[in-house]
Amino acid sequence: MIRGTKDKVVIPNCRGGVGSVEIHNKVTKEDLVDGLSLFAKVVIHPYSTIGYHLHTDDAEAYYLLEGQGVFLNHNEERIDVKAGDLCLIKKGQSHGLENHNDQELHIIAIVY
Amino acid sequence: MIRGTKDKVVIPNCRGGVGSVEIHNKVTKEDLVDGLSLFAKVVIHPYSTIGYHLHTDDAEAYYLLEGQGVFLNHNEERIDVKAGDLCLIKKGQSHGLENHNDQELHIIAIVY
Repeated sequence: MIRGTKDKVVIPNCRGGVGSVEIHNKVTKEDLVDGLSLFAKVVIHPYSTIGYHLHTDDAEAYYLLEGQGVFLNHNEERIDVKAGDLCLIKKGQSHGLENHNDQELHIIAIVY
Repeated sequence: MIRGTKDKVVIPNCRGGVGSVEIHNKVTKEDLVDGLSLFAKVVIHPYSTIGYHLHTDDAEAYYLLEGQGVFLNHNEERIDVKAGDLCLIKKGQSHGLENHNDQELHIIAIVY
């Protein structure tokens, strides 16, 4: 099965963050793809963030495609990350991602 | 947890294909990341392919980052794909991916 972008949405204050992010959904929960409930390309606009939030029932990975950011891990440690880095949390953990630059930060987000 | 590239390997005749591919592993089965047994950036060199192969026990997604190729789906149909496309197979299905161009084809491969 080939999926282009299913829908594209711009979300202000994503997960309680600041600014806005753009989400290009490829796979969502409604697709019933075994093992994956989200596959999306996400553009975090300049000076915008995905707020720190908890994953109760699933795990998530952010893979940085382009740009740089600050990842907040499950211990709320702030870690500088750049293109090529993969940021993982397990089920029951929290995370967030911040773009403090004037360039967009492009990532792939997968929930599984 | 942040993962850069764990190891980088060049594989000739990947899965019975032609030419060579370069695999930058971020997560492998040994990492015991719940739900993910592979997360890798894969570079399919010019005029190279990942041969058609079966996934008995897991599903896989190829996400095209850069370049274009031909995806062989579970019915052995050949489908032109390009950057931004996500190619999914389910557990028990087969697939392959071919680069017939003089440019590299960059993808993310996840097994789950």
